[in-house]
Amino acid sequence: MSSPNNYTQGFSAAVLASHSSRTAQNSCAYLLLHLKPTDRILDVGCGPGSITVSLAAYVPEGQVIGVDSSKEVVEIANGQAQRPSNCSFAVGDVFKLPFPDGSFGVVHAHQVLLHLPDATRALGEMRRVCRVGGIVACREGDWESTIVHPGGPIIDQWKAIAEKVFRNAGSEPNGGRMLITWALKAGFAAEKIKFTMGSQTYAGQPAASWWGDSFAKRYSQGEWREKVLGQGLASSIEVDQIGGAWRDWAKDEAAIYSIACGEILCFN
Amino acid sequence: MSSPNNYTQGFSAAVLASHSSRTAQNSCAYLLLHLKPTDRILDVGCGPGSITVSLAAYVPEGQVIGVDSSKEVVEIANGQAQRPSNCSFAVGDVFKLPFPDGSFGVVHAHQVLLHLPDATRALGEMRRVCRVGGIVACREGDWESTIVHPGGPIIDQWKAIAEKVFRNAGSEPNGGRMLITWALKAGFAAEKIKFTMGSQTYAGQPAASWWGDSFAKRYSQGEWREKVLGQGLASSIEVDQIGGAWRDWAKDEAAIYSIACGEILCFN
Repeated sequence: MSSPNNYTQGFSAAVLASHSSRTAQNSCAYLLLHLKPTDRILDVGCGPGSITVSLAAYVPEGQVIGVDSSKEVVEIANGQAQRPSNCSFAVGDVFKLPFPDGSFGVVHAHQVLLHLPDATRALGEMRRVCRVGGIVACREGDWESTIVHPGGPIIDQWKAIAEKVFRNAGSEPNGGRMLITWALKAGFAAEKIKFTMGSQTYAGQPAASWWGDSFAKRYSQGEWREKVLGQGLASSIEVDQIGGAWRDWAKDEAAIYSIACGEILCFN
Repeated sequence: MSSPNNYTQGFSAAVLASHSSRTAQNSCAYLLLHLKPTDRILDVGCGPGSITVSLAAYVPEGQVIGVDSSKEVVEIANGQAQRPSNCSFAVGDVFKLPFPDGSFGVVHAHQVLLHLPDATRALGEMRRVCRVGGIVACREGDWESTIVHPGGPIIDQWKAIAEKVFRNAGSEPNGGRMLITWALKAGFAAEKIKFTMGSQTYAGQPAASWWGDSFAKRYSQGEWREKVLGQGLASSIEVDQIGGAWRDWAKDEAAIYSIACGEILCFN
């Protein structure tokens, strides 16, 4: 990311807990079959680094480097107790990656491009540091596809507000559907692009309880609440109602939250 | 289905070609790991039977029976050249399945419940013919989640019209998100329900070409066109424009169509 301040989600405890639940298995299964034990991987926008760490197990004779534009989150990533010796972290901007051309066999990003003002340029920079014959892999949510059941007017309002926060930051919330378009613009050949659709899904108990409480916290404290209020997207009463709606949702045994995630493998 | 006339999609050549592209691998992967070689499977609303036939390979010492309310489509299913000896078809109504209680180890339906006026009752009937300890498995699309890229106002109109066709038939187009709710109402215990989210996705060429042309055909000929015109949901000029929009979409190398599909395993 170009600057931590551009990142709409912020780094509150609730956001970090959500990010830290991500692993290579639950977030980049589409890539795993293509990894070789000797691969050198760059994980762009690595956040607290849970995906980066779990990718390291797939390249025991290789290496994984996670970069993030936020110095504070890179320190959290570096401090992970379970960090293997072939996994390291550094501060780095996706628009100006601190590596020479063709440095990596695999360049990966998870939920990064949709937060950026210029995803094509970022993808071009990821392509630059990927060697010829390597893979650039991205997985991005597609906001409009988000399913929340049970729903209702307050949840609808939440969805619209969240979209506005994305748009106000100049980013594209429907990143999932844009991946092939962006990849073609970044110079990848159509016949070397493989697209699949995954999802991030929380359904039933205890999954809904965990996820709903996480959203409720974003609306009761931290950067997300401040952003929504600061941009005049809702009143504090409305923001409290949204938090309440998520707390109610979290208790429902039939609750389903799901967002479709576009997955792309670009063979360079 | 209670009657072939209730089935909003009809059985035009374009619809049958789309249905016949479905296999156990691309449409019920969530179920395959749970099958035992000796299982007796009922495939409800089997249509032309391509899923039914491919399920048979997973139960070589068992049996698969496909039922559909349409006599004409059951004849097509029975006539398949590759039909194995442990796979058969019969006419049958999901609301009144022609089998005693507990007849099957696995009762499966793919894209059936969202076409019905009373999905809970259908699921209850599927449960009735499933033995205790068996599995009822369903995969249902969730219309609102549908992603079409590139989109635009004509595609938006198409999506709204298709939703109205569902609603006018008394069925629930957002079936994916309703699965846990329906299963609980049908008497399954919350702790014995496993929900995942899959997708039906066509992206890039040649997949988009095949899928877009299939949709274009539904709007240029056959039951779907007649239904939209007959219900006054669009003028023939608008229906032609929708067909044209799908033909244009089919040519785009960055085209993505995706619909999230809820997948449920109910352990009886």
